Amino acid sequence: MSRKIRMGMVGGGRGAFIGGVHRMAAAIDGQIELVCGAFSSNPEKSKLSGQDFYLPEDRVYGSYEEMILKEKELPEDIRMDFISIVTPNHMHFGPAKMALENGFHVVCDKPLSFDMAEAKELVELVNKTGLIFALTHNYTGYPMVKQARMMVKNGDIGEVRRIVVEYPQGWLSTKVEDDVDNKQASWRTDPKRSGAAGAMGDIGTHAENLAEYISGLEISEMCADLHTHIKGRLLDDDGSVLLRFNNGARGVLYASQISAGEENALTIRIYGTKAGLEWHQMEPNSLLVKHLDKPTELMRTGVGNLYPESTAHTRIPAGHPEGYLEAFGNIYRNFAKCVQARLAGTEVDPIYKDFPSVEDGLRGMQFIEAVVASSNSNEKWYKL
Amino acid sequence: MSRKIRMGMVGGGRGAFIGGVHRMAAAIDGQIELVCGAFSSNPEKSKLSGQDFYLPEDRVYGSYEEMILKEKELPEDIRMDFISIVTPNHMHFGPAKMALENGFHVVCDKPLSFDMAEAKELVELVNKTGLIFALTHNYTGYPMVKQARMMVKNGDIGEVRRIVVEYPQGWLSTKVEDDVDNKQASWRTDPKRSGAAGAMGDIGTHAENLAEYISGLEISEMCADLHTHIKGRLLDDDGSVLLRFNNGARGVLYASQISAGEENALTIRIYGTKAGLEWHQMEPNSLLVKHLDKPTELMRTGVGNLYPESTAHTRIPAGHPEGYLEAFGNIYRNFAKCVQARLAGTEVDPIYKDFPSVEDGLRGMQFIEAVVASSNSNEKWYKL
Amino acid sequence: MSRKIRMGMVGGGRGAFIGGVHRMAAAIDGQIELVCGAFSSNPEKSKLSGQDFYLPEDRVYGSYEEMILKEKELPEDIRMDFISIVTPNHMHFGPAKMALENGFHVVCDKPLSFDMAEAKELVELVNKTGLIFALTHNYTGYPMVKQARMMVKNGDIGEVRRIVVEYPQGWLSTKVEDDVDNKQASWRTDPKRSGAAGAMGDIGTHAENLAEYISGLEISEMCADLHTHIKGRLLDDDGSVLLRFNNGARGVLYASQISAGEENALTIRIYGTKAGLEWHQMEPNSLLVKHLDKPTELMRTGVGNLYPESTAHTRIPAGHPEGYLEAFGNIYRNFAKCVQARLAGTEVDPIYKDFPSVEDGLRGMQFIEAVVASSNSNEKWYKL
Amino acid sequence: MSRKIRMGMVGGGRGAFIGGVHRMAAAIDGQIELVCGAFSSNPEKSKLSGQDFYLPEDRVYGSYEEMILKEKELPEDIRMDFISIVTPNHMHFGPAKMALENGFHVVCDKPLSFDMAEAKELVELVNKTGLIFALTHNYTGYPMVKQARMMVKNGDIGEVRRIVVEYPQGWLSTKVEDDVDNKQASWRTDPKRSGAAGAMGDIGTHAENLAEYISGLEISEMCADLHTHIKGRLLDDDGSVLLRFNNGARGVLYASQISAGEENALTIRIYGTKAGLEWHQMEPNSLLVKHLDKPTELMRTGVGNLYPESTAHTRIPAGHPEGYLEAFGNIYRNFAKCVQARLAGTEVDPIYKDFPSVEDGLRGMQFIEAVVASSNSNEKWYKL
Repeated sequence: MSRKIRMGMVGGGRGAFIGGVHRMAAAIDGQIELVCGAFSSNPEKSKLSGQDFYLPEDRVYGSYEEMILKEKELPEDIRMDFISIVTPNHMHFGPAKMALENGFHVVCDKPLSFDMAEAKELVELVNKTGLIFALTHNYTGYPMVKQARMMVKNGDIGEVRRIVVEYPQGWLSTKVEDDVDNKQASWRTDPKRSGAAGAMGDIGTHAENLAEYISGLEISEMCADLHTHIKGRLLDDDGSVLLRFNNGARGVLYASQISAGEENALTIRIYGTKAGLEWHQMEPNSLLVKHLDKPTELMRTGVGNLYPESTAHTRIPAGHPEGYLEAFGNIYRNFAKCVQARLAGTEVDPIYKDFPSVEDGLRGMQFIEAVVASSNSNEKWYKL
Repeated sequence: MSRKIRMGMVGGGRGAFIGGVHRMAAAIDGQIELVCGAFSSNPEKSKLSGQDFYLPEDRVYGSYEEMILKEKELPEDIRMDFISIVTPNHMHFGPAKMALENGFHVVCDKPLSFDMAEAKELVELVNKTGLIFALTHNYTGYPMVKQARMMVKNGDIGEVRRIVVEYPQGWLSTKVEDDVDNKQASWRTDPKRSGAAGAMGDIGTHAENLAEYISGLEISEMCADLHTHIKGRLLDDDGSVLLRFNNGARGVLYASQISAGEENALTIRIYGTKAGLEWHQMEPNSLLVKHLDKPTELMRTGVGNLYPESTAHTRIPAGHPEGYLEAFGNIYRNFAKCVQARLAGTEVDPIYKDFPSVEDGLRGMQFIEAVVASSNSNEKWYKL
Repeated sequence: MSRKIRMGMVGGGRGAFIGGVHRMAAAIDGQIELVCGAFSSNPEKSKLSGQDFYLPEDRVYGSYEEMILKEKELPEDIRMDFISIVTPNHMHFGPAKMALENGFHVVCDKPLSFDMAEAKELVELVNKTGLIFALTHNYTGYPMVKQARMMVKNGDIGEVRRIVVEYPQGWLSTKVEDDVDNKQASWRTDPKRSGAAGAMGDIGTHAENLAEYISGLEISEMCADLHTHIKGRLLDDDGSVLLRFNNGARGVLYASQISAGEENALTIRIYGTKAGLEWHQMEPNSLLVKHLDKPTELMRTGVGNLYPESTAHTRIPAGHPEGYLEAFGNIYRNFAKCVQARLAGTEVDPIYKDFPSVEDGLRGMQFIEAVVASSNSNEKWYKL
Repeated sequence: MSRKIRMGMVGGGRGAFIGGVHRMAAAIDGQIELVCGAFSSNPEKSKLSGQDFYLPEDRVYGSYEEMILKEKELPEDIRMDFISIVTPNHMHFGPAKMALENGFHVVCDKPLSFDMAEAKELVELVNKTGLIFALTHNYTGYPMVKQARMMVKNGDIGEVRRIVVEYPQGWLSTKVEDDVDNKQASWRTDPKRSGAAGAMGDIGTHAENLAEYISGLEISEMCADLHTHIKGRLLDDDGSVLLRFNNGARGVLYASQISAGEENALTIRIYGTKAGLEWHQMEPNSLLVKHLDKPTELMRTGVGNLYPESTAHTRIPAGHPEGYLEAFGNIYRNFAKCVQARLAGTEVDPIYKDFPSVEDGLRGMQFIEAVVASSNSNEKWYKL
């Protein structure tokens, strides 16, 4: 018989941002229960965070190593089923590897790892263990993103010719990382914790993932120009990339954290031989379909005959806006269904196998490596 | 020490709409646990629904009466703390009354009851018992609605002169209630289950509640014209109302379920002597502030110096859209905080006491009574 | 052989607003030439205005009477063909009547006249003389308004059930008429120059005209609530009206000049049994078509297979925004084509006979009379 | 004393697009009179076109050479003051040169010429003759573009860091140039008539001009990727360019005519250290100003305290949308004021000296040359 699956969290204690997102996303559908955590590298902080989440003291750990080892010793009907990793980038690999080696499924925040070597090792480990691994490239969880993907796949817009994907933010327009209380800014601009790229790693990878997810294409060549506008900042805070795709399509990707006044304006436009698509993350329930010779259609979450892959990812009737947490929750919901099926020895509906994988994570690390190399090079085109 | 509070649900089994909304809204913040339910008047259906939610069999009941009586017998550290009522309108009163009489707090879907008599009795009972009662007029849970309310309260737009509030939907444009599978349509258009009004009861009350909540004013007189456009339908599916408020402001309210092609387009505009406000439910993270002689401001959830009453009701940084479930969840979150404080014998921050009350429910029933009476009358003005 | 037609203007000298609009609207298509004018009741001002427009001194007159009489004496190949009346409301009747009696065609700003008696006399005079008369209810000149009208006419949205038309402005939110330099405000709020209604006469008539033009229906009953928010102002500055149409459709009309921060937000929504239409004057090149079970269509000026009645009123390819002056110009262009055909003794394409007539003006005066009477009455419904 | 100035037109006969735009733009303000033309290289067609514009036969010429020579012989109070060149690109140079050499001022459609050599010769000739020359980069004529320029100039957004300018169209998504009746497509895709670039020459130059006009910066380096998506098409129909500006700012420019379903979606976003600006040609009366820590402002044509350079280019009150023809007309209006001042021997208000010059045209030709060279090169950066 089916049951809720049990989550242990790594990171995400008081003061964190993405940890709370993961908890809400996991909770919303009533399929997942938070049962334990190593919420901070500081055991005292971890304990206080555990209280916030009403966890029993003995399930709040001082480190992920302790959590994994101790949970493994617990009876099967009590111990966690998977870990959720919500730490800064340089802390993804350790817990992910140890969890996989000890038989736990994994949900990991993006990007997958600190560098390519780690990413490759995780891919191998997932393949070897057969465990379920989800990467939270959450923007692909939106119903209208899934609709767009299915439209491209089914030829509704013809052959793709042009992709424009952009992710401007403005919150790093000043040197906020100098404020000691701004943890979000400080680790993201620190090459020791964030990795080789700044804006490109943090949000450029989302743009890359979204473009390839919807189009079903791969970037084959790129030409990048990354820049750091803020004096003394150690990683790129702005960059633009010319793209060539494996079917000959062309495009532009950019990611910027110094675009003053922008919130989180991830936007994608894909133009095919028959029609164009446009989607904005900040108004995620609308998808514009632009035709050659007739009125633009405004597709809306839940309205009309959308693809089942889209409607399977909505929860409430049209006109009741679903947002970021619901899209994020779709990754957790699908992951949970796969874990439940694994536990029950049943097959899961293919529609629920749709969440970013460890291979998508590797792809993101390749993108980061390439975009940094291309930016540093005088050669025009860099092949992925 | 604080703990999660425990919810028992009345209604909301398989095939229902609003029950799922309540469960997700209650779950999102990790403050509330669904522990039991009487999900259907059909005990078999109730049982199956209980399995969907991973409840133990002995906490799934065949009727609300059974649930209330049996839960009352359970040890204090196990039994439910409150019931959530998500049945059609004519089934609100019974469980609400019995819960209150047996010491359980209550969350109830709107409108409060089938008629005024029931509403008045519930108000008395809440006052007598001192129990906590929340009515899910969920649209007041949006952060930008709270911002609008605080702006009016603090005089940011001056004295209110004009209010336009509208709630058009299109889903009853055809006689969908004839489809036996369309439960939502069938009970809402049935005077025996819905009450004296159709569209005005279902969504007009939301419009009324929103207008009075934001403006801090009361409708003092109205002139209504309700109409049933679909032949054979038994309740109004469309109506418009001229409004006069207790400060002399004028306005218009309308609610329609035959506005073809509209999803859930609740919109409010409030004009004061200094500025105007505009908010759309379908893009709830934006609030337009229109000034007399300078550019319109586009206020956004989480951006800049909003009132604390607004920011206390957001969960994630600006640009990550929060939606209907998060707004709904704010009612549950605030209700939970009040119940927790009651359990702990502490004071709750006044910012969390902000959720619709049983008196708001009575007000809604007065509105329904008035709007129907006004529509049936040849006198121009009907005083509330 | 065809030639430009010649215009004489009454009013519209230095400091005026609508006179300049008429001149630009008349000039844009190169079909009309301004040849003379009585631009002000002050002959000196009239002369200076004539210089602004590069007119010869002998064609600039001190009064409309002088202009009409003297122009009549000029040779046929020189004298004006029609007069354009751009004075305040109380000054429409005199020049219109005299022009008609002396054989000149007329373009007249709206509303048609100061009161009903004048309006009726002008209708009779136009019928008697057979001269061409255009009233500049300019909003019906927009291509997407014409598209909307043809869609209703051809049954594309089914039978009309509901109409919501609104015209909020904010410019009279303070008592600007006390500023002696604000001529626009002073005459519009003066019952001796404006007529029986303020906001309802100035802009409510546009809303009424637009609703009846697009829907092809007539308002049969209304219930109005007009109000003057600004102390000491002599005419209504805000009002709302419940509407019943001659086919049983219901609706709301409102006009307000104290809606703080609104520019000129004329908007109409028409809902039929099959679909809904939405059009906003401030983004006039878009028309939303909302369907029951499929995506909303965003129709755009010049894109796809629009009705010929729409495309005949655009000048440039899609994506090059046409605005208020082009819509206004469509009235002049069509009027000019009719006058040219009259001069040439030919038939004009029926598509160009589409401009507001003296009967539309009479209808507007009936609306003003009714809305004021209804507002003053305690009876709920006032029949037109 | 001031008078209307007299225009002779080269090109723009029946079947042309941009000729009509120039005539309407010139007519709208009543400052310019069309007095003669060589509307087609086919004298019969030219004659018929002249009839359309009600010109006397003897002022309709069979060639621009004939027009210039004959007009020069006419008395000063009759002959044209300037020529307006509205032919395809390869036909700009001839009439421009001859007009300048014979003492006529010039308005010329963009791009300035077929190639750089012609452009340089025209610059020299304008400098030598001192005649007035306007290039119709019309998008800089919009009031909100001028507002944006002044805001940058006055430091309102701080130092510019990032510019994104894009001009997607969809009308060349299929090989429409194969249709013999599609003159617009056929000459624009023909390297013998259009020049070295297709989309980049036709609309990319507008994007370049707009970015440099608003920012006051110059592109110093670029990296381009042009592409022809349609088989058999002879010029680029799509291209993207990485930009570096002379102050260190970075950016992206793209121009595409195969972006299916796009109309004329010229858009610019400029981010400074203090704020960001966003403007869309298809809704030209709005300018978004995005701040670091407060609500975005929606500036609107004519609302509030805009810069005088903006308000001097509006004709009607706020809320009455002005469009493409009005922006285009601003170039003609300003040009006319300069010619009138020249004729009168007076100084013109500097606010009216604001229209694109022959040097802007040369800059556009440099851009075309550079973008084509960069695209053909394997070197990453091409210096302008």
